[in-house]
Amino acid sequence: MELKRIGILTSGGDAPGMNAAIRAATRCAIYKGLEVIGIRRGFEGLLEGDVVPLTSRSVGGIIHRGGTILRTARSERFKKPEGQVEALDRLKKLDLQGLILIGGEGTFKGAWALYKKGFPVVGIPGTIDNDVAGTDVTIGFDTAVNTALEAVRKLRDTASSHDRLFIVEVMGRNSGFLASMVALASGAEYVLVPEIPSDIEKLCDKLYNARRQGKTHSLIVVAEGVMSAQDLALRLKDTAGYEARVTVLGHIQRGGSPTAFDTVLASRMGACAVEALVEGKSGVMTAVQKDEMATPPLSVAWEEKKPLSADLLSLMDMLSI
Amino acid sequence: MELKRIGILTSGGDAPGMNAAIRAATRCAIYKGLEVIGIRRGFEGLLEGDVVPLTSRSVGGIIHRGGTILRTARSERFKKPEGQVEALDRLKKLDLQGLILIGGEGTFKGAWALYKKGFPVVGIPGTIDNDVAGTDVTIGFDTAVNTALEAVRKLRDTASSHDRLFIVEVMGRNSGFLASMVALASGAEYVLVPEIPSDIEKLCDKLYNARRQGKTHSLIVVAEGVMSAQDLALRLKDTAGYEARVTVLGHIQRGGSPTAFDTVLASRMGACAVEALVEGKSGVMTAVQKDEMATPPLSVAWEEKKPLSADLLSLMDMLSI
Amino acid sequence: MELKRIGILTSGGDAPGMNAAIRAATRCAIYKGLEVIGIRRGFEGLLEGDVVPLTSRSVGGIIHRGGTILRTARSERFKKPEGQVEALDRLKKLDLQGLILIGGEGTFKGAWALYKKGFPVVGIPGTIDNDVAGTDVTIGFDTAVNTALEAVRKLRDTASSHDRLFIVEVMGRNSGFLASMVALASGAEYVLVPEIPSDIEKLCDKLYNARRQGKTHSLIVVAEGVMSAQDLALRLKDTAGYEARVTVLGHIQRGGSPTAFDTVLASRMGACAVEALVEGKSGVMTAVQKDEMATPPLSVAWEEKKPLSADLLSLMDMLSI
Amino acid sequence: MELKRIGILTSGGDAPGMNAAIRAATRCAIYKGLEVIGIRRGFEGLLEGDVVPLTSRSVGGIIHRGGTILRTARSERFKKPEGQVEALDRLKKLDLQGLILIGGEGTFKGAWALYKKGFPVVGIPGTIDNDVAGTDVTIGFDTAVNTALEAVRKLRDTASSHDRLFIVEVMGRNSGFLASMVALASGAEYVLVPEIPSDIEKLCDKLYNARRQGKTHSLIVVAEGVMSAQDLALRLKDTAGYEARVTVLGHIQRGGSPTAFDTVLASRMGACAVEALVEGKSGVMTAVQKDEMATPPLSVAWEEKKPLSADLLSLMDMLSI
Repeated sequence: MELKRIGILTSGGDAPGMNAAIRAATRCAIYKGLEVIGIRRGFEGLLEGDVVPLTSRSVGGIIHRGGTILRTARSERFKKPEGQVEALDRLKKLDLQGLILIGGEGTFKGAWALYKKGFPVVGIPGTIDNDVAGTDVTIGFDTAVNTALEAVRKLRDTASSHDRLFIVEVMGRNSGFLASMVALASGAEYVLVPEIPSDIEKLCDKLYNARRQGKTHSLIVVAEGVMSAQDLALRLKDTAGYEARVTVLGHIQRGGSPTAFDTVLASRMGACAVEALVEGKSGVMTAVQKDEMATPPLSVAWEEKKPLSADLLSLMDMLSI
Repeated sequence: MELKRIGILTSGGDAPGMNAAIRAATRCAIYKGLEVIGIRRGFEGLLEGDVVPLTSRSVGGIIHRGGTILRTARSERFKKPEGQVEALDRLKKLDLQGLILIGGEGTFKGAWALYKKGFPVVGIPGTIDNDVAGTDVTIGFDTAVNTALEAVRKLRDTASSHDRLFIVEVMGRNSGFLASMVALASGAEYVLVPEIPSDIEKLCDKLYNARRQGKTHSLIVVAEGVMSAQDLALRLKDTAGYEARVTVLGHIQRGGSPTAFDTVLASRMGACAVEALVEGKSGVMTAVQKDEMATPPLSVAWEEKKPLSADLLSLMDMLSI
Repeated sequence: MELKRIGILTSGGDAPGMNAAIRAATRCAIYKGLEVIGIRRGFEGLLEGDVVPLTSRSVGGIIHRGGTILRTARSERFKKPEGQVEALDRLKKLDLQGLILIGGEGTFKGAWALYKKGFPVVGIPGTIDNDVAGTDVTIGFDTAVNTALEAVRKLRDTASSHDRLFIVEVMGRNSGFLASMVALASGAEYVLVPEIPSDIEKLCDKLYNARRQGKTHSLIVVAEGVMSAQDLALRLKDTAGYEARVTVLGHIQRGGSPTAFDTVLASRMGACAVEALVEGKSGVMTAVQKDEMATPPLSVAWEEKKPLSADLLSLMDMLSI
Repeated sequence: MELKRIGILTSGGDAPGMNAAIRAATRCAIYKGLEVIGIRRGFEGLLEGDVVPLTSRSVGGIIHRGGTILRTARSERFKKPEGQVEALDRLKKLDLQGLILIGGEGTFKGAWALYKKGFPVVGIPGTIDNDVAGTDVTIGFDTAVNTALEAVRKLRDTASSHDRLFIVEVMGRNSGFLASMVALASGAEYVLVPEIPSDIEKLCDKLYNARRQGKTHSLIVVAEGVMSAQDLALRLKDTAGYEARVTVLGHIQRGGSPTAFDTVLASRMGACAVEALVEGKSGVMTAVQKDEMATPPLSVAWEEKKPLSADLLSLMDMLSI
């Protein structure tokens, strides 16, 4: 099956930089003599045949845009075996010989199903959570960290005008990459992540000691997967009478123009995915490992658990004195 | 009592631009041959004599800083008649013949008490809520609107990637100035403000009709004084089964560098306040009325209620089709 | 001639907020039962009949975008009488009974020519220069000031690390509105504007005195109409041996998302322009005068000269001590 | 000589993140039981004994600030052997047993001189140019790239409103790291870097072909070390009649709050430098190599030449079609 025409889709939660990856994959494929089809709304759009041709011009002016021009959607149908057979059928009717899928673990599992049925697929890790094992970084993480950091820095202004305690809830249902980076970069005093059991009494003790040593304001970053900022505020009040102000960043963290890092990462990964397909690889993802491009199997994403950096957490402890 | 030395304090919630007002008042006073004393932590600091001399150099490099270098604090003592007598005493001991107070309605009521006792005071309206009658604008409002707007614009990116409903909670316990400006400027579909009774069923009908007409995503801005974003989300779910994503901006809205508008407004008001004291005025605030500087009595702030612009609200209705 | 269908075009230099004005005019016109046609590339596109229908949906998602979706272009043909006759002809062939033109003085002169020939026109002042007499503010000015201010604030960081002199060149061929607002808001020590003759020797004296009084770094804002930053740097070196670092902001000042102020201003002006056409007005512009909407004749734009605020300039002098 | 007390200085051009490195080194040293002295204005301040004690509190609130609280300055005296002897003498009088120096190649050569005389030194690479061999990244580079990128993105708005050609001059006297990253991340069509000979005729051919293929606007990024943007504009005009608009970012690129990446990098390097001194290392720099911390000899900085990534340049070529 000669490679002449490939498809691209985005699936799951969107992340800044996805458009830069779409642009890079499209232009790189065209550069190598391939045609490119954009599949809209992820697996759902694939099942419905909701497609649009992609050209060098049609991906112009999107490199800096947040979100994804191909949109994403959930697909219950694709989760079932029949749906996957149907999807395979649709890929053939569309005359595609390869598919690039941009998203997180869920997207990669879907890609894996197609790969197992013999269809050439390459995944590109795009999620603000950075919780994809196999790659050191994912597209969108750097942008989300900076977006949250900018928000937290604004709290610092008002915090130092008063004697205050702030709680900021950031994204991260199962992982604390975002929370810990935001905490370290903002100089937050405390961070609560899903990977480490929370001890509210110990947190209250720390707050108490910090006040006694002259800290007039404190900042706590909490990943949504631990508890909501509102719940944490209630628990601090119940335990030690502290009054905390609450910010919930929510989906703001998914938006905005990608940073330079994410734009370049997405561009490299988009080109790398096309090259992998051209070289006949399948069932792999584009990855950065120790600062170099790699193409590990997609299955690493769910077979391994990517750990938080213990170094960074202990650094944070040392620097928040 | 010849004017030779004046004090400046900030009180209540801080607002971006307060530092620019402190700088302008200080340099203008020095230009006019006066000495300037900064009183830290508002009325509480006044009672404690917590002061710092302000010079042209010491207010250098603060024009763009959020928060207030003089800090603010609540003072229960000053609310009592004895506290106010004590404060007057302290002002005399500090050899001050005039006082500039930057803050909102609560600050102005405190200033009024000193004025009633014969001490020369001028208020500068600084609050992100813009809810001070007597002046068309307050310091910090333009910055807070832009800060919230930037956040909401990031939601748009991700909103258009999915079919989604977002709720953003902004500040405003008793007034909807911030909420309505953010809604209008962001192109939000709906806004809930304290001045207008909320009708959740009607809101659900509107959402339903918008979807039918092809709107794939909607944004609701709600002022905290109406209800929390979390409560609104629950009510939308109960009433019509809608799933909404929630963002609570919180004190982020108070932070950040002041916009050009707020910086210039603060500079003009700082200079105007000094001029008012020099001209022997007291019990007044600096104000902008129809784009010109004015000095109405402080009491206007609580004797009148500043209305939302009906024009802007009906404009929003028309433009969100 | 009953009003059923109107056209919108943007002409001259683009300004942030033009898209918000296009959206508001379009939606307001549709709300009032009119059809709307977008004319691309200004008068040149009008002559070529380069048009696109505008609907509520097609102007969705543009409120925050810089530039103009209708683009602009120069037209030598339209400047000649024959071109104007041709344009009139084209307007009739397009079955338009009214035209909204967004731009500066040049655009308004073109609109005036059509008005003189009996075609209903309303102008909307959109230019970052704010140099349109008849309105206190133009769309894009507030955004450009804030864009330049953010850039200048970054210079402050590095300026205070060294002992340094910086020159920033901002836009403004014939007017100093942008330069003077940026200078005032950034706390710049000096500003050179076209309205006031420059005295380089006096500037050098001021720099010298400031250094002697302990100022370790200074910032000069110069409008491009006075001289280039590079030329100013050479003259400072020749006159007094000062070494200055140069920044030329260029067209960056035209870009970026419009501020809340510009977005709301553009929305109000877009709606106001439609209302003016509906009420049978022609040959007028939408304007803000003392904070209220007005519709003065277009000709005010070139018959009067809008002065810089002397108050703001003297305030700057006082505050840069 | 037991390590009890260390000094920190910043030298050369400032870079965003230097303050985060000062904070991290100070707090880490205190955590390890050391005292910390800040030396102001680099080697010049060292010779003059211009010092300030640094404590956990005194480095609070600086993590996000651009510039350097310790300031920098040039020192002609330190370049001479006598000056270096004097500096050594001063270090002993200050009772310091170790010195951390933050800066670029020039700073490291100064550090090397002290190391050769037996004084324990560790360098931290801080420069927006990223041109220090031995480390993959330097503090400030990521921030400068993002600052320039934001500026260039604003040009895109106005570029797509007109048919236009823009030139942006970025920093980089001897290296094109900044220029090439900005070009790649912004989707610029062309980049001129000092490492590769420029061919203006070929550039004009490319511009001509792009226009013929329907590109309506183009962006050229040029490193200052190649030629000034103004000169490039003249040459494009002379060679092919192109009219280009010019932006010179200048020292804006040194300012602004550090990005999350730079803040975390600076924090890690600050801590790593203290650990290196504690472990008895000297004459080394803190470095990131393949995403891991390392401490190569300072001399690598001038003995090796750090190459531009050929991969990134060819990627840019492929993606700008």
